[in-house]
Amino acid sequence: MSDNNVKQRFEKIVDELSAPTSYLEVCHEHYEDEPMPSIAILQEIVEKCRQLIFPGFYGFIPINPTTLKYYTGLLVDQIYEMLVEQVLAGLCFSCKQERTVELLMSRKKLSKQITIDFIEYIPTLRANLSKDVEAAYLNDPAANHQGEVVFSYPSIKAICNYRIAHYLYKLGVPMIPRIISELAHSETGIDIHPHAQIGVSFSIDHGTGVVIGSTCIIGDRVQLFQGVTLGAKSFPLDEKGNPIKGIARHPIVENDVVIYSNATILGRITVGHHATIGGNVWVTEDVLPHARVIQGRSRIEKFIDGAGI
Amino acid sequence: MSDNNVKQRFEKIVDELSAPTSYLEVCHEHYEDEPMPSIAILQEIVEKCRQLIFPGFYGFIPINPTTLKYYTGLLVDQIYEMLVEQVLAGLCFSCKQERTVELLMSRKKLSKQITIDFIEYIPTLRANLSKDVEAAYLNDPAANHQGEVVFSYPSIKAICNYRIAHYLYKLGVPMIPRIISELAHSETGIDIHPHAQIGVSFSIDHGTGVVIGSTCIIGDRVQLFQGVTLGAKSFPLDEKGNPIKGIARHPIVENDVVIYSNATILGRITVGHHATIGGNVWVTEDVLPHARVIQGRSRIEKFIDGAGI
Amino acid sequence: MSDNNVKQRFEKIVDELSAPTSYLEVCHEHYEDEPMPSIAILQEIVEKCRQLIFPGFYGFIPINPTTLKYYTGLLVDQIYEMLVEQVLAGLCFSCKQERTVELLMSRKKLSKQITIDFIEYIPTLRANLSKDVEAAYLNDPAANHQGEVVFSYPSIKAICNYRIAHYLYKLGVPMIPRIISELAHSETGIDIHPHAQIGVSFSIDHGTGVVIGSTCIIGDRVQLFQGVTLGAKSFPLDEKGNPIKGIARHPIVENDVVIYSNATILGRITVGHHATIGGNVWVTEDVLPHARVIQGRSRIEKFIDGAGI
Amino acid sequence: MSDNNVKQRFEKIVDELSAPTSYLEVCHEHYEDEPMPSIAILQEIVEKCRQLIFPGFYGFIPINPTTLKYYTGLLVDQIYEMLVEQVLAGLCFSCKQERTVELLMSRKKLSKQITIDFIEYIPTLRANLSKDVEAAYLNDPAANHQGEVVFSYPSIKAICNYRIAHYLYKLGVPMIPRIISELAHSETGIDIHPHAQIGVSFSIDHGTGVVIGSTCIIGDRVQLFQGVTLGAKSFPLDEKGNPIKGIARHPIVENDVVIYSNATILGRITVGHHATIGGNVWVTEDVLPHARVIQGRSRIEKFIDGAGI
Amino acid sequence: MSDNNVKQRFEKIVDELSAPTSYLEVCHEHYEDEPMPSIAILQEIVEKCRQLIFPGFYGFIPINPTTLKYYTGLLVDQIYEMLVEQVLAGLCFSCKQERTVELLMSRKKLSKQITIDFIEYIPTLRANLSKDVEAAYLNDPAANHQGEVVFSYPSIKAICNYRIAHYLYKLGVPMIPRIISELAHSETGIDIHPHAQIGVSFSIDHGTGVVIGSTCIIGDRVQLFQGVTLGAKSFPLDEKGNPIKGIARHPIVENDVVIYSNATILGRITVGHHATIGGNVWVTEDVLPHARVIQGRSRIEKFIDGAGI
Amino acid sequence: MSDNNVKQRFEKIVDELSAPTSYLEVCHEHYEDEPMPSIAILQEIVEKCRQLIFPGFYGFIPINPTTLKYYTGLLVDQIYEMLVEQVLAGLCFSCKQERTVELLMSRKKLSKQITIDFIEYIPTLRANLSKDVEAAYLNDPAANHQGEVVFSYPSIKAICNYRIAHYLYKLGVPMIPRIISELAHSETGIDIHPHAQIGVSFSIDHGTGVVIGSTCIIGDRVQLFQGVTLGAKSFPLDEKGNPIKGIARHPIVENDVVIYSNATILGRITVGHHATIGGNVWVTEDVLPHARVIQGRSRIEKFIDGAGI
Repeated sequence: MSDNNVKQRFEKIVDELSAPTSYLEVCHEHYEDEPMPSIAILQEIVEKCRQLIFPGFYGFIPINPTTLKYYTGLLVDQIYEMLVEQVLAGLCFSCKQERTVELLMSRKKLSKQITIDFIEYIPTLRANLSKDVEAAYLNDPAANHQGEVVFSYPSIKAICNYRIAHYLYKLGVPMIPRIISELAHSETGIDIHPHAQIGVSFSIDHGTGVVIGSTCIIGDRVQLFQGVTLGAKSFPLDEKGNPIKGIARHPIVENDVVIYSNATILGRITVGHHATIGGNVWVTEDVLPHARVIQGRSRIEKFIDGAGI
Repeated sequence: MSDNNVKQRFEKIVDELSAPTSYLEVCHEHYEDEPMPSIAILQEIVEKCRQLIFPGFYGFIPINPTTLKYYTGLLVDQIYEMLVEQVLAGLCFSCKQERTVELLMSRKKLSKQITIDFIEYIPTLRANLSKDVEAAYLNDPAANHQGEVVFSYPSIKAICNYRIAHYLYKLGVPMIPRIISELAHSETGIDIHPHAQIGVSFSIDHGTGVVIGSTCIIGDRVQLFQGVTLGAKSFPLDEKGNPIKGIARHPIVENDVVIYSNATILGRITVGHHATIGGNVWVTEDVLPHARVIQGRSRIEKFIDGAGI
Repeated sequence: MSDNNVKQRFEKIVDELSAPTSYLEVCHEHYEDEPMPSIAILQEIVEKCRQLIFPGFYGFIPINPTTLKYYTGLLVDQIYEMLVEQVLAGLCFSCKQERTVELLMSRKKLSKQITIDFIEYIPTLRANLSKDVEAAYLNDPAANHQGEVVFSYPSIKAICNYRIAHYLYKLGVPMIPRIISELAHSETGIDIHPHAQIGVSFSIDHGTGVVIGSTCIIGDRVQLFQGVTLGAKSFPLDEKGNPIKGIARHPIVENDVVIYSNATILGRITVGHHATIGGNVWVTEDVLPHARVIQGRSRIEKFIDGAGI
Repeated sequence: MSDNNVKQRFEKIVDELSAPTSYLEVCHEHYEDEPMPSIAILQEIVEKCRQLIFPGFYGFIPINPTTLKYYTGLLVDQIYEMLVEQVLAGLCFSCKQERTVELLMSRKKLSKQITIDFIEYIPTLRANLSKDVEAAYLNDPAANHQGEVVFSYPSIKAICNYRIAHYLYKLGVPMIPRIISELAHSETGIDIHPHAQIGVSFSIDHGTGVVIGSTCIIGDRVQLFQGVTLGAKSFPLDEKGNPIKGIARHPIVENDVVIYSNATILGRITVGHHATIGGNVWVTEDVLPHARVIQGRSRIEKFIDGAGI
Repeated sequence: MSDNNVKQRFEKIVDELSAPTSYLEVCHEHYEDEPMPSIAILQEIVEKCRQLIFPGFYGFIPINPTTLKYYTGLLVDQIYEMLVEQVLAGLCFSCKQERTVELLMSRKKLSKQITIDFIEYIPTLRANLSKDVEAAYLNDPAANHQGEVVFSYPSIKAICNYRIAHYLYKLGVPMIPRIISELAHSETGIDIHPHAQIGVSFSIDHGTGVVIGSTCIIGDRVQLFQGVTLGAKSFPLDEKGNPIKGIARHPIVENDVVIYSNATILGRITVGHHATIGGNVWVTEDVLPHARVIQGRSRIEKFIDGAGI
Repeated sequence: MSDNNVKQRFEKIVDELSAPTSYLEVCHEHYEDEPMPSIAILQEIVEKCRQLIFPGFYGFIPINPTTLKYYTGLLVDQIYEMLVEQVLAGLCFSCKQERTVELLMSRKKLSKQITIDFIEYIPTLRANLSKDVEAAYLNDPAANHQGEVVFSYPSIKAICNYRIAHYLYKLGVPMIPRIISELAHSETGIDIHPHAQIGVSFSIDHGTGVVIGSTCIIGDRVQLFQGVTLGAKSFPLDEKGNPIKGIARHPIVENDVVIYSNATILGRITVGHHATIGGNVWVTEDVLPHARVIQGRSRIEKFIDGAGI
């Protein structure tokens, strides 16, 4: 940018973008000494959790009985240190209270308590994910080995993030769980809201396009395929015409249900245990236990000229 | 590779791959002193735009009234420098003219003009994205906070890339806009062609699998869900049997339309204002304003034995 | 973590996670001197293959007739060195034999043979991908340039990974091909099993949500759109109620077939040559050559009040 | 490490190294919430100071009147943020007081005050270094350009670190100045104690091996060459036989003195203004103004056989 | 490089440099499956040893009684893994034997034995370095704190590398010790040959230019200053006129000797215990215990005109 | 920085540092489209030259007759590309001419010519350095292997940089050679001016503190030890009292001379062939061929009390 005119335009743009009237709408108001949620740090925490839970699959941990405890201890400590900061960031994020030293001190203490509670959950998390891996392996004839599932099934990543995020949500952490679940959505195309409740031995095959809404309740041994939506049918509106927040509006899926690819189940309906939902169907009413729902037959016609449809 | 036979095979492979007959089909002919479009640099430009537009959300900018202008100025300058190069790369990419010093000089000048024009658009871009964030927040009962939308809604990333790419397309930049929109597609599963026209307060929930074709025209306050396709129905063929390029072939979606998950709208049809398209439907004809289109009812049958479908 | 109680909890967690009863279920048993499959290294191998095949598009290779052969040779050598290690890792991964020096030596030799065989395939791979690029360009009226296809069509990445993975599978490498195809799935939302067979001039437009199962056989000049599933209809169960592995259960798609977005084709059926499958349909029976299958018409009704559906 | 014996040895070593009896002697006792001095961060601070002071020479700052202020502001802010932490680390490092929240709070406040005071000194620092550069240029017939001095004279780096460190020392920061001066020593072989006092237009040619002790007082326009030692002659011992700390024991060098290579000046003596000290001499007594001190003549002898000496 | 002539020159240069006649003189003949000594890896090993020995000073280890053992175990394991490879590289480096699988296997085993022996020495190394730190602290009136010595005395780095290198030399490792000592030389300007023998509580102040030759024997509590040479006086030549290797030719320095800056002590002489050698002297004959050697007095003359010397 | 006062101080500092009156003295005036000399890039060029010249010693090049030419070609190309830019930067650095497109074009062409000339010199450079390595090996009884010299003798790095820098100087490149020689000075403590002339088989043992001035002329087979200065005795002053630049003022050292540690040779004198200069001497007059110069004997006295000197 050499000439004077460009210089003036350039400075004008910077001044405009730096004016509070421009940025106040889109920035997060941030207090000194309070950390910000960081997508990058949360991704790192998730990756360290995966390394810890499945030693040897994600990243560099040598599986050696002599040294495993050092790597384990180190990962636990690193997760702890980073997560304390992110939990604190979550607690501060939407806080409207006036800032005081006491408030910050009590939040720091709370972050540490929440984080050690989360850390204590990791052995259970590992046991649960082990069952999810087993379910994926048993349900998919293309899987040759449980290790193959860990290495190459995106659903394991998505469910891992979900279980981490859900537990943090139960411990009362705002904002952070939602970012963690979105990290898995971006990686896998599987979008599980952290508020959803999901039972054991949960499996999703392929997974791209799966959406599980925030008030879903899913039982044990449920099996989904790609493109399944467990969504809301309609949103009751408030007086301003905006959807009312916080109402139960997503399906209840009981134990041992199978839902095939691209099926859409909408609203606070119940899909009974052992029911099977076929691919590409649209379901907005309760489904009885052991029922089987499939799509209406497509129209087929002979066709000579191959051009267009 | 120790023995002689392997050595010979190795050299033969390299020679084969280095032969013009092998690589000319698949490489881009590149002139000295002309930059190449770079996916990595374009990703960096996009990330810096996001940092600039939403201070504090993407990356490390401290929100401090004293220092924000320095970070802003720096980001603007870095975006400028990188984008000048990429715009030039785009201008050169498919150029068939003979290369001269004058041509290169005039293109360098043009790149700088285009880039400063783009930079000048960023305050408007911020204002538009702010409205998109607000729309997503109001439309989704699961969203607790506008900041949550910025942090964890993939649609914001996709729309941000789209608005950047679309503006560069309007400024006459070839190639680069398409790469920018594909970057968002890979990140979010949302595929918006940069040539599409999209109004204000646009929202996409979940988003995976959304496709918006190149000649789409979308009004204001339109709301999409995951898996929606706004595509072409058929492609008129030229005399060689190949699709004719550049014909308007995607839907017009008027203001205040809602389209639910996995719906497919094909062809140069118009979806009238305030219409609602239900999930999983297939629409290839005009839809009247305020109309409501839903899928034919699925066949449901009781079923005892749970094995397969 | 300052106080004593936290210290005790912390140590207890680490001890629990380091106990064989906790980790043996979820780790891969790994022998000294045997490499582990590494997702990160495989990603690097894939990226170097892409750089090699399409010089100038992915990464930094200057297209200069004088120097191209050095870059080519270097990439070939780097791919060779990394792949030898990963092929060996694949061979060792699920091996149940007792470990001996001889076994390791013979596997190292085998890894080198397989890898040089793979390297020798790269010129053919380049030629095949060149045809895939051409097909995408000809089939999509929105594409202005073959270079645009390479730069911005996710299907090219997905098909590239598929062709690499499939060839490694044919050379007898376990585990590794599946990880390579999942890398593309994560990047593009396109999930092609490496065991599937796919002919020349294959194209996928947009691609998010495409699933191609492991026993699929796909002919030449086949064209898919986003969300297409070529899946299994049902899985015969063994005496324990688990799916029997290895049975042909996915469609055969003959030459010159077009399958539009979100169609679901299930089971070991045959879609005859030149057939067209419309969007969002569900097909579980054979389709005749030149046939055209489209969805049953949606129910449309006028609607005054815009609230919900 | 496979066999049992190695395992036992390995664990024994780790236990031994982790035992407080082993590490307490050599570690720094560190309180939670207190930062540690970090050599790496201090190096980064120094590099940013150099970038700030000499725009365009160290690192990437574009010298553009439009954008320079953004880069300047950014660097100042980054230096500020990092230095606040390091000053705090220095204040805490050797503190023996009992830790309280109030103590930490007051130290954090003090760190910020000291750091802003330091930042305010940077314009003066730049002016002083500019004179040092000019002196080096004028004194060295091999220098063609002041820019050459900035780019390639190690003394500029060493004097820059010294002036930074000395100012921090004057502001009352413990520990940190000494680390900063050692960073330059490692880079340049020039060892200037941060407590020394040095006037304007100071130059050192080549510089390797120069040592300037902690109680030195050096006037204006002094010029040193490589290998010069301004050291202590002897150290008065305390009753335990250890040197007494804090006594003035290094030379006073008045204005306009030149000291040639490898000269050694020891003890609290005064080298008078305009004196010249020749190379390789050993001086332990006062030198009068304008005096000239040179080495006793070497013995020279003819010698036929070239083997050894 | 566009024109043809440049292309030809370029290819000719590459061919020339790739010709065995050009590179065989200057490359190290390297066998497949044998690692090469790596300066970068050795630097990393040294840095990890420093981190391990002085927790908290070099790099990021938190000093926390709960977690220190995990960091310790991790560092020990990483040092072990990297050093096994480098010891093997050293064993192979100058080997002239014919290569067999058995030879390589036995060397791998030997590398592991040597490395575990070295690891076992680390607690002793820490104790010895702790005494060196104490000696530096006591000898230097400018040092305020033992922590200051660890943070900012280059001699500690140099002695640390020496003690590591010397132990590896005693364990029979070729080549590697010499590289490790040169790493410290480059960092600190202190050049200690790994074959030299040095007692406890060794200190070097400032240190730039210190050289300690390979056959030196240095007692306990010896104190050196910068620029001291403990070198060889002459080298007996063989019949070809080249120095004979391996003859004791450097000084023996007994306990409690102090040698001031830039003194040069040459040949296989003995400096008796409690002797003091003054700065800048040249000593080639035995020095008695308790003796004091100082330089002949310099010639001093008054001097009016300040120009030159 | 929260309160208002700090904000004002902060902004004042940035404004002061951004004012042309502050920065114009210390920045390099830089024209758009002209590259700046970059210390970091020059370091990378030097490292790539070392990798190229000594394959396998510096960095990762596998010594494999099949692949070496690819690595060689790549390195040559990378050195070429980076060096063209740096040569151009050097040509522009101190240019006072008015900037025109033609000037820049002709300089770009010149940079390419100079760089290809330099590249053509690399085979000779390798041959010369090979002789320097051999000389170091033969002269030092502590060296066991020529490979040890390459791996661990700092003089090889310093001489390598010198020979690179000297050739660039002879090709007419300003500024860049001086930076390259300073890079070696910082690494090794050996300071060789790029304008000095040095013959074949040159060796420096240990090397810290060696200074070789810009007008030195050094013959073949010369051998130096640490701390040797080949400097200027006095600098004739111009009418302003500043040293006159460009006068021959450093020693001529003829073939086969040995100069021992810390000797200082000053002025335009000649040290005759086969002369030997002892350690720590100060020489300012011609030395005859085959002469031997040693230091005057030190005063030695017995001494009882060990305190100080």
